Amino acid sequence: MATIADVAKEAGLSRATVSRVINNYQYVSDEKRFLVQEAMKALNYFPNSSAQKLRSQRTQTIGVLIPVLTNPFFAYLLEGIDRIATDNAYQLLVCQTKYDQQKEIHFLNYLKSKQVDGIILTSIENNWETIAAYTTYGPIVLCNEYSEQTLVPMVRLNQLEGSYLGTCHLIRQGHRKIAYCRGGYMSQLTKDRHAGYKKALTEFGIPYNNDFIFKNVYDLEDGKKVLRDSLAMENPPTAFFAGSDQVATGIVKEAMKQGKSVPGDIAVIGFDDQPIASVVEPALTTIKQPAEEIGYKAMEVMIKSIESELEPNDMDIHLPLQLIVRHST
Amino acid sequence: MATIADVAKEAGLSRATVSRVINNYQYVSDEKRFLVQEAMKALNYFPNSSAQKLRSQRTQTIGVLIPVLTNPFFAYLLEGIDRIATDNAYQLLVCQTKYDQQKEIHFLNYLKSKQVDGIILTSIENNWETIAAYTTYGPIVLCNEYSEQTLVPMVRLNQLEGSYLGTCHLIRQGHRKIAYCRGGYMSQLTKDRHAGYKKALTEFGIPYNNDFIFKNVYDLEDGKKVLRDSLAMENPPTAFFAGSDQVATGIVKEAMKQGKSVPGDIAVIGFDDQPIASVVEPALTTIKQPAEEIGYKAMEVMIKSIESELEPNDMDIHLPLQLIVRHST
Repeated sequence: MATIADVAKEAGLSRATVSRVINNYQYVSDEKRFLVQEAMKALNYFPNSSAQKLRSQRTQTIGVLIPVLTNPFFAYLLEGIDRIATDNAYQLLVCQTKYDQQKEIHFLNYLKSKQVDGIILTSIENNWETIAAYTTYGPIVLCNEYSEQTLVPMVRLNQLEGSYLGTCHLIRQGHRKIAYCRGGYMSQLTKDRHAGYKKALTEFGIPYNNDFIFKNVYDLEDGKKVLRDSLAMENPPTAFFAGSDQVATGIVKEAMKQGKSVPGDIAVIGFDDQPIASVVEPALTTIKQPAEEIGYKAMEVMIKSIESELEPNDMDIHLPLQLIVRHST
Repeated sequence: MATIADVAKEAGLSRATVSRVINNYQYVSDEKRFLVQEAMKALNYFPNSSAQKLRSQRTQTIGVLIPVLTNPFFAYLLEGIDRIATDNAYQLLVCQTKYDQQKEIHFLNYLKSKQVDGIILTSIENNWETIAAYTTYGPIVLCNEYSEQTLVPMVRLNQLEGSYLGTCHLIRQGHRKIAYCRGGYMSQLTKDRHAGYKKALTEFGIPYNNDFIFKNVYDLEDGKKVLRDSLAMENPPTAFFAGSDQVATGIVKEAMKQGKSVPGDIAVIGFDDQPIASVVEPALTTIKQPAEEIGYKAMEVMIKSIESELEPNDMDIHLPLQLIVRHST
């Protein structure tokens, strides 16, 4: 097997220079770097015999794919990832996918081209087989969203339990006409949340009513529209389970504007426990998703993955959800 | 007009070397690159004769440096950049600097290593000379923050006018004890805002009181603390000019908690017009910063810069600020 001395001889340079190139020191001329690299190729010399050396080939950069940054849930999740990354001398490249399959693929290719050491996905746009192909190029960690098909580490919340808790809370307050707001695409997360809502209805013997399901609801303005649409119904719901605090806030603000009392006439429950949940009047009852903690765990698992220190119980980490009761229910 | 041959003569190098530098070939020593760049500057030679050639070396990726993504102002600014980028088949790499000089430098190096075609800065952490060195590697566009020293395109708001408008509004409502909240570091933006506040006081013959300046105030929790600290003062302010809607919201929430009426006992004015400004009760009077529009313009100018289509009036674009009067004053 070739040694550094062989490479130096082949390149016609000193061992010190070869070492500098291998360890990416700054002050090596491009010509010398080129000669060393050519010599390494010619001798089939690969400098990562030890983990120490491997480290030097890393970018110390992790790509984080996030669907949309104007949703504070993702901004706080990123904050958690960033904290652990900074503590461990990693940089983040944040890639906004806008829920777009092509953009997701584009950024996954950063793993292939070695521009990042690993990728953290916070949502899944393509089917898992498509994404799985990229695991051959480097570690992928999944957080927030999840899929039963993956063989990569996942950090997730029990979404079914979250919506079950929230729906039970509304039922116990006497509501039987409970609207449920969700996005468009049925990811595993969306399916599980929907299942938790259904499970609570079933347990209390309340029939599932398709008219009470509001789809493609994402933000504050969508929440306002849900409330207006519901008031136009012949038999409107008396309670709303919103997919996020932003949606819940829209429902509350519009209800007050339409002269309805919250929680007197209409009860509203959010999801996330974002800062806005405590700001709106009445403050929102909500399901707290520990966004920053998800980020901490995801980045910790990523580092373990890069260092080849993953253990079996790193593969599927569950964090707790919590019902926070305030004044909107 | 200077030609490649002139540059080669001036630099004392071959035309081939000059050509390699211009076309960013990898194997040119830093010394030769420096000599060519100096010669190009001396002769005022600008190498973009063939847009076609340049195009082929592009990544179609723009780096966007943002201090902190949990501040919705930056999330919406990014949204604007992303819209124009997507329309023009560009991808964004978002780099969170956390107001850190080292991180800013790290990400600026993406321009040098050709991982991005250009960089949009939304704040400035290092002194401008340090940043300016990177303009030799590709276009830099500055938005939101600004500096009188730069020779790169800027998209900015008249911050002095914004704080002047807001302070005048408070004075006209009868306030003379007006607190002013700001961050820590005195960027040009911070200086100008501060100057607008002072200008309004001076015009109305109100003495400037250093006790009314609250520093290192950034978010909702900081706003709450400002209110508590002010109540402990012997001669507390009756009005607050906050640096952001998040800070203003903190002041309003804490004032209500302490049994103060807003705007009866205390008037509060925000900055930005983020969604939270309409959510809090009473809704915030604020200075609207058109975050998405700043993003649109910055990315438009970036594309022009890459295509070498910049015109003189792209170099310093001013967007209007607006006083939005709601119920907190």
